[in-house]
Amino acid sequence: MIKAGIIGGTGYTGVELLRLLIQHPGAEVTTISSRSEKGKNVADVFPSLRGYADLQFCDPDEAGLERCDVVFSATPNGVAMTHARALMDKGVRLIDLSADFRIRDVEVWVRWYQLEHACPELLADAVYGLPEINRESIKDAQLVANPGCYPTCVILGLTPLLEGGLVDADQLIADAKSGVSGAGRGASVGALLCETSDSFKAYAAPGHRHLPEIRQALTEVAQQRVGLTFVPHLVPMIRGIEATLYGRLNDLSVDLTALYQKRYEKEPFVDVMPDGSHPDTRSVRGSNTVRIACHRPQDGNTAVILAVEDNLVKGAAGQAIQNMNLMFGLAETEGLQAAALWP
Amino acid sequence: MIKAGIIGGTGYTGVELLRLLIQHPGAEVTTISSRSEKGKNVADVFPSLRGYADLQFCDPDEAGLERCDVVFSATPNGVAMTHARALMDKGVRLIDLSADFRIRDVEVWVRWYQLEHACPELLADAVYGLPEINRESIKDAQLVANPGCYPTCVILGLTPLLEGGLVDADQLIADAKSGVSGAGRGASVGALLCETSDSFKAYAAPGHRHLPEIRQALTEVAQQRVGLTFVPHLVPMIRGIEATLYGRLNDLSVDLTALYQKRYEKEPFVDVMPDGSHPDTRSVRGSNTVRIACHRPQDGNTAVILAVEDNLVKGAAGQAIQNMNLMFGLAETEGLQAAALWP
Amino acid sequence: MIKAGIIGGTGYTGVELLRLLIQHPGAEVTTISSRSEKGKNVADVFPSLRGYADLQFCDPDEAGLERCDVVFSATPNGVAMTHARALMDKGVRLIDLSADFRIRDVEVWVRWYQLEHACPELLADAVYGLPEINRESIKDAQLVANPGCYPTCVILGLTPLLEGGLVDADQLIADAKSGVSGAGRGASVGALLCETSDSFKAYAAPGHRHLPEIRQALTEVAQQRVGLTFVPHLVPMIRGIEATLYGRLNDLSVDLTALYQKRYEKEPFVDVMPDGSHPDTRSVRGSNTVRIACHRPQDGNTAVILAVEDNLVKGAAGQAIQNMNLMFGLAETEGLQAAALWP
Amino acid sequence: MIKAGIIGGTGYTGVELLRLLIQHPGAEVTTISSRSEKGKNVADVFPSLRGYADLQFCDPDEAGLERCDVVFSATPNGVAMTHARALMDKGVRLIDLSADFRIRDVEVWVRWYQLEHACPELLADAVYGLPEINRESIKDAQLVANPGCYPTCVILGLTPLLEGGLVDADQLIADAKSGVSGAGRGASVGALLCETSDSFKAYAAPGHRHLPEIRQALTEVAQQRVGLTFVPHLVPMIRGIEATLYGRLNDLSVDLTALYQKRYEKEPFVDVMPDGSHPDTRSVRGSNTVRIACHRPQDGNTAVILAVEDNLVKGAAGQAIQNMNLMFGLAETEGLQAAALWP
Repeated sequence: MIKAGIIGGTGYTGVELLRLLIQHPGAEVTTISSRSEKGKNVADVFPSLRGYADLQFCDPDEAGLERCDVVFSATPNGVAMTHARALMDKGVRLIDLSADFRIRDVEVWVRWYQLEHACPELLADAVYGLPEINRESIKDAQLVANPGCYPTCVILGLTPLLEGGLVDADQLIADAKSGVSGAGRGASVGALLCETSDSFKAYAAPGHRHLPEIRQALTEVAQQRVGLTFVPHLVPMIRGIEATLYGRLNDLSVDLTALYQKRYEKEPFVDVMPDGSHPDTRSVRGSNTVRIACHRPQDGNTAVILAVEDNLVKGAAGQAIQNMNLMFGLAETEGLQAAALWP
Repeated sequence: MIKAGIIGGTGYTGVELLRLLIQHPGAEVTTISSRSEKGKNVADVFPSLRGYADLQFCDPDEAGLERCDVVFSATPNGVAMTHARALMDKGVRLIDLSADFRIRDVEVWVRWYQLEHACPELLADAVYGLPEINRESIKDAQLVANPGCYPTCVILGLTPLLEGGLVDADQLIADAKSGVSGAGRGASVGALLCETSDSFKAYAAPGHRHLPEIRQALTEVAQQRVGLTFVPHLVPMIRGIEATLYGRLNDLSVDLTALYQKRYEKEPFVDVMPDGSHPDTRSVRGSNTVRIACHRPQDGNTAVILAVEDNLVKGAAGQAIQNMNLMFGLAETEGLQAAALWP
Repeated sequence: MIKAGIIGGTGYTGVELLRLLIQHPGAEVTTISSRSEKGKNVADVFPSLRGYADLQFCDPDEAGLERCDVVFSATPNGVAMTHARALMDKGVRLIDLSADFRIRDVEVWVRWYQLEHACPELLADAVYGLPEINRESIKDAQLVANPGCYPTCVILGLTPLLEGGLVDADQLIADAKSGVSGAGRGASVGALLCETSDSFKAYAAPGHRHLPEIRQALTEVAQQRVGLTFVPHLVPMIRGIEATLYGRLNDLSVDLTALYQKRYEKEPFVDVMPDGSHPDTRSVRGSNTVRIACHRPQDGNTAVILAVEDNLVKGAAGQAIQNMNLMFGLAETEGLQAAALWP
Repeated sequence: MIKAGIIGGTGYTGVELLRLLIQHPGAEVTTISSRSEKGKNVADVFPSLRGYADLQFCDPDEAGLERCDVVFSATPNGVAMTHARALMDKGVRLIDLSADFRIRDVEVWVRWYQLEHACPELLADAVYGLPEINRESIKDAQLVANPGCYPTCVILGLTPLLEGGLVDADQLIADAKSGVSGAGRGASVGALLCETSDSFKAYAAPGHRHLPEIRQALTEVAQQRVGLTFVPHLVPMIRGIEATLYGRLNDLSVDLTALYQKRYEKEPFVDVMPDGSHPDTRSVRGSNTVRIACHRPQDGNTAVILAVEDNLVKGAAGQAIQNMNLMFGLAETEGLQAAALWP
């Protein structure tokens, strides 16, 4: 039984980790920390877990994280990096769901996150935890940088096109839409129901922090510089991301759906749908699946790729557990087999 | 492995049965019928089940229902009763999720449902499938009338008060609120997003079909005539029922929370929360739990009981599987242990 | 042209006052204060008002409120009472949309609001601004306590029953449901979309601050002690309140709908619907109307009254303007004639 | 007083026309038809209009449309064209809110709408009713083809770029998102709350009927062939369209915001927001305004234009009234001055 610890268990990612780990046959949560809720029972903060979680939030300094086999860090950016060195030294494996270890170039990271980095020397060892791209490296990693929610969807959606050199890599567009849970559980006016419900908008059009992360991964996939315009939007719903991806094809003879199906045929969590499909986010609600459909409207030279995921599962907690499964030699799908909740 | 068939698999109750049965370790769906979708793959109609269900909808007459161990009927009212006799004769057990076998008095049924009853002779043998009230009878039943969504919540919420004779049974009020999935998956203007979203209303105040069902059950519990005012409301959400129940106490010394906790202490799917709690429907989203909290505002003589459930799970498909588990000697919680999806 | 000032213009009530006053032919907003947004253009904070409002938020101390004909206070509880004395002394009329002047008995107020009262000597002069009950007193008032959102709906819904002595005044039940805007625009986890959307719950069942306010008004209407159980609920929508009101009739011969229609026949903002109606909150979205329907289920002795309003209009800003119209001798409906936004 | 008739008054566009015309100082609705609701009072079908509309739905053949000054046709596609010839012959002016007269090339229309056209000879006289492009022609038109909801937003969003020849006209992308009211008020499973709420998806990626309409208008604006990829999406909200528009700039020196502000400076219903803005759909809810913001992310060569409208107002009924005002010499903003309902 893997002993798992969670740092920062009161956000949406933290509670989703709890929900999934509680039902995981090969792991148990042995400690969970939260500065704001320390001393409280997990089930008092999250009544959905009454009867499932006999745990108390504790102070991170008293959490005994060093006795865990693996620690999930589900804190805001800038916290995991202050724990990482100590965990590494104790031989604990760390899966960081924040952005602290996602960007290899520390100067880029500092520019986008506006923080000093506490342990830049660990960046080279951190493995970007996207199993569909990096499966083998993840297995042996001690430190996994779990991908961001948007990047997971966008990278998986564009990878087959770029691997094959089928599109102009300099002109990619990712028009992405997220449910409000992506904004986290902090108290903010901008995420109130009355500010977000029954409305829709773009945000961060000048530049979102997930852009350099996506660009780094796509550059590796494409083996060349990638030009990407990424515009995120806020959808009046709780969970889910949809990305509509546009690329200019330089080869019109390719069967996009066949290409994608072949690329992902062995992937347990990537579902390439038949031609003509339009995946909706509810078809993956609560599940670890990314669904993708490929279009080439009016047989023109623009590829339109539609990709959906649950931002809290494949975009965060589910992918983290998928990484844990790989790191500990479990079946990759262990604890992640539940079908989506529909409707 | 229990061989289960589903009649009418394209409504919300049908697809929820599928979701739960697919993941049930002791049962498998061997046949599923739908007149409207016959010939189609289940996963083409419900993309959330892609990779989980290798089944086709078939015509009910060709479904081979007689070869099942148990058949779930998830059709509109008036259909199950046309199948019941044949299934009974073949020794197949039937769990009917419609209202056809819920009312023992056929005249009452005819008056409220405005249909002739096709097999009134079966009514006496049908067991009302609310395990917390009728567990032993369910185990041996061949024909189970699965309770309505509102009745499950209201009956469980009022039972401890009535069993103890603690309230004026003549003046009960159930102010109940349901998500829109209660209206079913048929095309209707009244259930469009644009007609129900960002709005709230009462409906059926003069009399809802669940009233005689609730009254029948509560009369048995109370062993006396029960006077109940029941007003349902439509909430702009997908799943969930909340019932706020009012009763006039004739004994002010009783500790309501303690009473409820004792009544339900062995029930795996009834969670009585601590004093002062306010259960929300999302705390049971996708789960088979009913959560209940008890209040006596300002220490007055009015008991206020708050009860929530997921109308598609404990209020329909989950309870049907709970009944199946009982009927076939499985652990009652088998296949129903998933925690709620939150947020 | 009435010169109107607004204190606390950045909440939902404040911006609704702005929306309505900007389009009011007989009034203009000459000053608006906000400590948090001072110096900003109103239209930068509320883009919906771009092109309509050429105003800046200013510090309340520099707002020149004493030069207004009327000041609307749309602040949290406890602020208006610190401004009231100065405005009274300058002869400025004050319409307070908070709770500071609603409760006549200062001890009751202190108990429910947990604050010292800054000017209890003004309480006797404050007029409770519910025109359908207090129209004549409002005309001459200098200080109007604008009613709470729930009280407006509940009081108008129960008044005809109590005036006629038709129900047991000791056993009234108000099961009320509100959109999330009732929680205000402050940053709080409890009002996030992810905490309130796709869910429903009761809250404040042990006692909500609007209870003493409702009880005070109903006691005057009934001319006797009133026993009321009031349970509010949170609906996943932005605007709107629905109250389902239950009373035990002591006279079964009365035609409820006729009674209500007669009581409100001259009221421009109370619409009594035909028998059998179920008003929905969207039918009053953005309008100053309360719609009411009367039921007596199964011809029993329980009256069920359904009442809806827009909590930000008739439950707050619209009613404040209705009061202003009365106080300044304008047509009562001036600036309030817009039909609801539907759908 | 302009005498206005409405054909097909029971859809969302019809009731929005009613709401706006009822409050229009220079027009009155003298007749309204609906085959499905004939004989019913308008206010019984739409309780939001109780007290505002003393009208009955009548059969279109008995509506006396020929006695109107102007007729608005708010029917499904294919109906207006059957009325147009008769109205033209009587000298009645017709504003058609369906697609019957929007496409000048009848073969293109037939291909996309899969209907025979009943009066192709009228197409040449029909004026495309987008005042910001065609104001002068609209004034004298007898037959106005009111633009589609998506086209209004997309055309206004791209026009300044194309007029100036600033982008590669062959590579435009319009990623557009609409509330569910765009799907109309017909009973359909796909528009149920339970199918659309808490979810998001693209639809019609292979080709949406608004594509040829947008292309026709942009071709005229650009004076050259236009290559456009248009992907619509469904947002879980009632009203509103957001379009995120991408174009490859061939001149990086242009100040986009200044360009747009200059182009639209005299337009009463186009609001170009300051640099860095992200318009949300609620900022135009119920109003006739289009809000636009311009971005050039990371100072690259991609222009990102964000445009929002209320699909039922500027995208349908409001624009129709704007056209009526122009056709009858009224102030263009008459009856359309209301600020958005926010929140």
